[in-house]
Amino acid sequence: MKILVINCGSSSLKYQLIDMTTEESLAQGLVEKIGIEGSVLIQKVEGKDKYIIKQPMKDHKTAIKLVLEALVDKQNGVISSMEEISSVGHRIVHGGEKYCESVLINDEVMADIEACVKLAPLHNPAHIIGINACRELMPKTPMVVVFDTAFHQTMPEEAFIYALPYELYEKHSIRKYGFHGTSHKFVSEQVAEVMGKDIKDLKIITCHLGNGASLCAVKNGISIDTSMGFTPLDGVAMGTRCGSIDPAIVTYLIKELNYSVEDANNLLNKESGVLGISGISSDFRDIEDAAFKQNNRRANLALDIFHYKVRAQIGAYAAIMGGVDAIVFTAGVGENGPETREACLKGLEFLGVEIDTERNAVRGKVREISKENCKVKAFVIPTNEELMIARDTVKLI
Amino acid sequence: MKILVINCGSSSLKYQLIDMTTEESLAQGLVEKIGIEGSVLIQKVEGKDKYIIKQPMKDHKTAIKLVLEALVDKQNGVISSMEEISSVGHRIVHGGEKYCESVLINDEVMADIEACVKLAPLHNPAHIIGINACRELMPKTPMVVVFDTAFHQTMPEEAFIYALPYELYEKHSIRKYGFHGTSHKFVSEQVAEVMGKDIKDLKIITCHLGNGASLCAVKNGISIDTSMGFTPLDGVAMGTRCGSIDPAIVTYLIKELNYSVEDANNLLNKESGVLGISGISSDFRDIEDAAFKQNNRRANLALDIFHYKVRAQIGAYAAIMGGVDAIVFTAGVGENGPETREACLKGLEFLGVEIDTERNAVRGKVREISKENCKVKAFVIPTNEELMIARDTVKLI
Repeated sequence: MKILVINCGSSSLKYQLIDMTTEESLAQGLVEKIGIEGSVLIQKVEGKDKYIIKQPMKDHKTAIKLVLEALVDKQNGVISSMEEISSVGHRIVHGGEKYCESVLINDEVMADIEACVKLAPLHNPAHIIGINACRELMPKTPMVVVFDTAFHQTMPEEAFIYALPYELYEKHSIRKYGFHGTSHKFVSEQVAEVMGKDIKDLKIITCHLGNGASLCAVKNGISIDTSMGFTPLDGVAMGTRCGSIDPAIVTYLIKELNYSVEDANNLLNKESGVLGISGISSDFRDIEDAAFKQNNRRANLALDIFHYKVRAQIGAYAAIMGGVDAIVFTAGVGENGPETREACLKGLEFLGVEIDTERNAVRGKVREISKENCKVKAFVIPTNEELMIARDTVKLI
Repeated sequence: MKILVINCGSSSLKYQLIDMTTEESLAQGLVEKIGIEGSVLIQKVEGKDKYIIKQPMKDHKTAIKLVLEALVDKQNGVISSMEEISSVGHRIVHGGEKYCESVLINDEVMADIEACVKLAPLHNPAHIIGINACRELMPKTPMVVVFDTAFHQTMPEEAFIYALPYELYEKHSIRKYGFHGTSHKFVSEQVAEVMGKDIKDLKIITCHLGNGASLCAVKNGISIDTSMGFTPLDGVAMGTRCGSIDPAIVTYLIKELNYSVEDANNLLNKESGVLGISGISSDFRDIEDAAFKQNNRRANLALDIFHYKVRAQIGAYAAIMGGVDAIVFTAGVGENGPETREACLKGLEFLGVEIDTERNAVRGKVREISKENCKVKAFVIPTNEELMIARDTVKLI
């Protein structure tokens, strides 16, 4: 059984075709600049050259049509006909409060995703366009949506209600939702397996550290808190996002420094984080280069702040779970940054975790990185959101 | 030697006259509604009836003149002449980055407090008016200012720099300052004394829980982090303040829900916190009544959220200090709320702290409240910001 996984952005689209008999990825691709000049599709298949199609794509429907053609292409494709695709799994950023798990797409589900547009104005409209295009092109293929927010719907009220007038929650749905749910779920399940334990007996802190970053407290297999909030802006510092700051800074920017609301939003989302502190880049590799090779002061500061916030969040989650058994690092920096992992766990020996420098010298592989016999174990677990989406899709069809 | 301690608000003023030979408070008073209808001065002296003066007070100078008269009043006062007041210590909310300790007042200091008005627009102007009135009335008396921010000036950059464009710090002084410094300093020094240890060897978490609430990580005697930030809005939930929330909520209020910046500010500062969640009151006694006696759902939720955030913050500070030796509760709720203290420490047994219910049945007294032989000790230490201000004042004159 082959599942196509699609993640639609407003002008881009990522896809992966996964063979669920082996859980192997047959092809991965990316379409960029949909609807704007320079549209391009790049498909990678193991053992073959990159397949690149440059041609105008006026909309998502055109793009998805090309994706399907690329997959069945005689020379560059991996399947002989579209009928081989059993189902399509779509990643959706925001499912609001209604969805605590993945669901088969129908008109009611589409209406609910539409209703969440105000909560995710950048993402959900793009998802809707992508799904509609897919449904038109593959009218007989069942489709599934997998929500980034679903895994966190188990959070207790004390974790998801802000200390704001309660009416803002009741009338305007302002609460913590949390994101990266598919990833936190995937790596927490994986780590329990690696540890040979039942996830129901574990307290796990998952650190999804990429350009977007969030931590999750997974107790007995369910998310009980996560660092992103109403939007993906909250929590720890990120590549370009500020994470948690004094909310009075936002009104100060507008009132005292004459920012428009849009400019303030832009500043907090796109010009802050380690980019804002370092003034160099949002990419941790560039910042580490500047810090380690040139001893750039602000690059060092950006890294210090990032590690500091992750460390504090780990402490906070240990406190609310009443302890911790395992700490998991995943996503770009989490999987590929031994220095980051070591710095994030520095000083946490009192919790019972200590990094093993030799074990920690690993990139992108499942590995225990804490010292032998640590009470609290640390791991690298590469995330695989696409596989998780495909698994959910199989379950539902 | 007698020291007058003054804390000036925009339309109110608190004072205390302290005999520094015994460190006893001779008189405490409050003036309310300065410059508006219904001005009143209330002075308390042990062993005497409350002394109440109701008369129009057009400005702070009039109010302070009445304070001095009340203190020397033959029947209700405690000193025979103003000359007995050796010095006046003024509490100042914001000292910016320049002041890491208390200082004697001179014109340069006054200019610096003025320069911090933009950072504390509600507080610093009132302080300036109060100091000027005092200087006019007592031109020969040396005066000292004690800053709420000073104790936190030892924070490292990784704690006080936000993940925002660095220029906002350089050009606009946007950083974490922290408040309640006098209180955090006082109780951390006190707890070291009670423990019979050198504060330089201790990792202490001080929880100042009043209508305003903040926590502080005091490592080796200095503040290395605190939960309030650029303003006193940040950190844990408070009586009416929201504490830390997703900063995107602020722009959402303005852009999507049509709040003006002033209304948003007002909502976050005055209508949020446990008042906002419970819809009942900002006073923890009222909320506890509703929760415990009437089992009011939202009152319970408000308390749960408050405890949850304090607990998470304790965990975060243990993590950044690499452990903790003592946790201190102080201020209104911290000193007088056994239920609050127990709930805040619930689940922290893994850190090595466990509350002793019997010992914890205490209000407003120095007391160890953790179980015998706990690795991490918990205490109630009543704060005394006025005494701390008076002590600093004596040191400087």
